[in-house]
Amino acid sequence: MSGEFSLIDKYFAHQQQQRKDVILAQGDDCAIVAPAQNSHIAISTDMLVSGTHFLADANPAHIAHKALASNISDLAAMGASPAWVSMGIALPNVDDAWLEVFTTTFFKLADYYGIQLIGGDTTKGPLSITLTVQGTLPEGKGLTRSGAKVGDWIYVTGTLGDAKAGLDVILQQRMSDDVALNEHLVEQHFISTPRVLSGMALRDIASSAIDISDGLVSDLGHILARSDVGARIDVAELPISPALTAFLQQEDERQYYALTSGEEYELCFTVPETNRGQLEVALSNTPFRCIGRITGTRDLELHRNNIPLDWNVSGFDHFKVTV
Amino acid sequence: MSGEFSLIDKYFAHQQQQRKDVILAQGDDCAIVAPAQNSHIAISTDMLVSGTHFLADANPAHIAHKALASNISDLAAMGASPAWVSMGIALPNVDDAWLEVFTTTFFKLADYYGIQLIGGDTTKGPLSITLTVQGTLPEGKGLTRSGAKVGDWIYVTGTLGDAKAGLDVILQQRMSDDVALNEHLVEQHFISTPRVLSGMALRDIASSAIDISDGLVSDLGHILARSDVGARIDVAELPISPALTAFLQQEDERQYYALTSGEEYELCFTVPETNRGQLEVALSNTPFRCIGRITGTRDLELHRNNIPLDWNVSGFDHFKVTV
Repeated sequence: MSGEFSLIDKYFAHQQQQRKDVILAQGDDCAIVAPAQNSHIAISTDMLVSGTHFLADANPAHIAHKALASNISDLAAMGASPAWVSMGIALPNVDDAWLEVFTTTFFKLADYYGIQLIGGDTTKGPLSITLTVQGTLPEGKGLTRSGAKVGDWIYVTGTLGDAKAGLDVILQQRMSDDVALNEHLVEQHFISTPRVLSGMALRDIASSAIDISDGLVSDLGHILARSDVGARIDVAELPISPALTAFLQQEDERQYYALTSGEEYELCFTVPETNRGQLEVALSNTPFRCIGRITGTRDLELHRNNIPLDWNVSGFDHFKVTV
Repeated sequence: MSGEFSLIDKYFAHQQQQRKDVILAQGDDCAIVAPAQNSHIAISTDMLVSGTHFLADANPAHIAHKALASNISDLAAMGASPAWVSMGIALPNVDDAWLEVFTTTFFKLADYYGIQLIGGDTTKGPLSITLTVQGTLPEGKGLTRSGAKVGDWIYVTGTLGDAKAGLDVILQQRMSDDVALNEHLVEQHFISTPRVLSGMALRDIASSAIDISDGLVSDLGHILARSDVGARIDVAELPISPALTAFLQQEDERQYYALTSGEEYELCFTVPETNRGQLEVALSNTPFRCIGRITGTRDLELHRNNIPLDWNVSGFDHFKVTV
């Protein structure tokens, strides 16, 4: 890197966060971190490319949020405590206004979650961002996709469906007459909040967990495939926001949205019968709902008030393929 | 990721290396690793973009080698032992032949250095590769750029200049009549070998270290800037290969190449007088040469057999700017 591209570094030197476990940050051949004794490290990498994951003229604040939040959400789904992030970023040119907005949003979110940027690489090229985030875990406490057992209860945090409704508004495929409602749903789409504290609180309670990034059916499908089990979901139990209820008149549609909406960054997790009492205490500050139960089949069965549904939901085929 | 792009994953499932400290590799929300007690972790990220760092039609074996070797070389410069790598890769299309060659070379190098691929992201987009490599270090033993002291001796491993000569051949700017010599130098350019064992051996001996990726003058410049010292180099001491001697007839030119050749992946390091004896034992299997000494000025002085030179070497200006 040389010339004007070295100037980019000034935007990445603004972070407030200085973690005690970062021995050496940017400016040497490597960063050095000091993991706590008896801790494991959870590591996730996501790559966002202009034209594939966002439009070239997308708001840089939204790009920064999406890049970091989707990665933090992966840490949340393991029950990890966010710690460090490394960034590779390619930019077609040095656009000061773009970099100012991008880095301001990035560091605001990083600081909120106690994450320190420990290094990376800036280069000229088609716009893309690759982040590797790392979080710490007490030894052996990571929440995986493979621990669900027959009889475990299935839960989700928050509400589901708003992100998909927000995408409808962005793509102008469906709009409400209520302008404020449209704006609220777009906001929900762009700045979903990873459930980090919930994930950490679930470490000793949940038998498996995943974050909802592709849609509940698809993501729960990963738990089922990895755990070699099935599930029965009652769509009447899916948590729906007042905003989605106002946006979609049909109950069927709302439930379909809740099943397939991606980038929600809510957690889907399973809990053994014996841990249900602890769950109420552990997540006392987070809305969550029981939506079904793990079964011994390898199918995902959809019911509504105990009546089977034959919906062909997006993501379900994907699950079938990956089993 | 969906459709044909999910098929890419099959190429990344081939690795032999299964490290004991990898608790969970690909397939969950995060990978999980278990660092050894009392160890620190060195982390480096490099991004390679088609059109910026290599030509779109470059040999995928060379791209894979460059991507991983340049990152491993950063670990070597810290004295770290390579452990884990995460990859973000964007590809314009699914080219089986390309992927086969890329992953074969990648895993051959990763296995050689005991590195396990622990996760990543594959996506559609303009060709680019971002790697985050991690290595382990005994607590407090990392070799930084900031530890050089006045009076320390300056060393380099191996020989310098071949990578730049190889680039001349590739760009057809200068060729030898000896076809085998040209091919040898091109090879040197593409598959330089990181000095991992040397870096580890230098942990208790060197006061500072860096890998030569931008050219000796530029990289030594980073040590001088970070350590707030100067240096005096005798260009007659620069280690030159027989190949470079055959390629370049003028002694001046060979020394200029040795000063400015990048992507050598040799180490430049400083050693206090009291550790010089240990150095001979520690690097008994690696060629290395003393090329100068750290001074109390903030300048890099070039001499030849004790006569000052006034060369304006590429990379030197860059050093001036970054001080």
